[in-house]
Amino acid sequence: MQKHGKFITFEGCEGAGKSTQVQMLSGYLTSQGIESIVTREVGGTDSAEQIRECWLSKKDGFWEPVTEVLLITAARNEHLKKKILPALREGKWVICDRFLDSTIAYQGLGLGVDIGLIQKLYELIAEGIKPDITILLDIKANSGLDRVESRNGIDDRYQQKNIEFHETLRKAYLAIANENKKRFAIVDASEDKETIAAKIAKIVDERLLNGE
Amino acid sequence: MQKHGKFITFEGCEGAGKSTQVQMLSGYLTSQGIESIVTREVGGTDSAEQIRECWLSKKDGFWEPVTEVLLITAARNEHLKKKILPALREGKWVICDRFLDSTIAYQGLGLGVDIGLIQKLYELIAEGIKPDITILLDIKANSGLDRVESRNGIDDRYQQKNIEFHETLRKAYLAIANENKKRFAIVDASEDKETIAAKIAKIVDERLLNGE
Repeated sequence: MQKHGKFITFEGCEGAGKSTQVQMLSGYLTSQGIESIVTREVGGTDSAEQIRECWLSKKDGFWEPVTEVLLITAARNEHLKKKILPALREGKWVICDRFLDSTIAYQGLGLGVDIGLIQKLYELIAEGIKPDITILLDIKANSGLDRVESRNGIDDRYQQKNIEFHETLRKAYLAIANENKKRFAIVDASEDKETIAAKIAKIVDERLLNGE
Repeated sequence: MQKHGKFITFEGCEGAGKSTQVQMLSGYLTSQGIESIVTREVGGTDSAEQIRECWLSKKDGFWEPVTEVLLITAARNEHLKKKILPALREGKWVICDRFLDSTIAYQGLGLGVDIGLIQKLYELIAEGIKPDITILLDIKANSGLDRVESRNGIDDRYQQKNIEFHETLRKAYLAIANENKKRFAIVDASEDKETIAAKIAKIVDERLLNGE
């Protein structure tokens, strides 16, 4: 019987380099003879992206915070049932840019939704699956936002507001990581991308590959 | 302190006359000096209608059944928090065309979603609120569909499929009503609308008004 794949999630604030690192990890796994898929939340399937579009078509404050969690959980259910679980069952590894911890950080610690409720909703859909490793790309809010700014161009006032919000989110992620030490690995995302990728490869080697 | 309003829901298959009867009950309540609002599910607020639109924009089978329940629950959360609960707190009565029992009938007994899950999701958002009375407008599937057909025009093959599906739904509603006898009132919807309205007014009198 084919062995089940591993499930690796990436978390962190905007500008931490998640989308680069998920690709670099996929490349590393290929070099080790491991087939993987790269995906993201909120979204990852056509159906989940439809829900994402509905959710993000409205300004902040349009939805009740619990509604946001229900919409995200609906999208996550599509993503899990139609993409993540089938891939894992085929023995492929799944690398996902954002997952449940983003909901806990943004809607839970950020918007005040009860974290127990977020977790209960996840358990209702998850069929017992949780990430084998979650990589937290940790970066000071102003460094991360400098990267986003150089990508998009953001005015100063918006950036100031963002720095405060992102500092709150960063603390939220660190708190979640500290409560789930066995699953999380915190990686300093201020270094260059090759150094970060090498650290992540080492973590994956130590925690998942050497145990094979 | 102002007394809280009452919450009355209407359930039943297509063509049972729900939209007519919610309006007629509202008229009756006005005649009794009671302020009421009429609303419907899935929908009832701009935000809930947005979710309804996202959900119904896709064909049957596009969504996982549990996703449908999560989307409907997200819409229901908007409806409860922004319309139903505020009206009840102001002392208004709320008359709602379809509510939780439709989800149990369609997605639970119809699509096979675990009914315990549907109820848990409702409890997570409901703040302890449930309908004071649920009126089930009961009608044989072919009679109800004759009414829908005369409204919309439906081809024979579609109607045959619908008759079977509606008979299943009708049984589902009757089963739910039998398990919740105290809350439900089953009304024969094959009679003329004035007779039905008079029966509903009598039920409301006996169960809610005479107890005031």
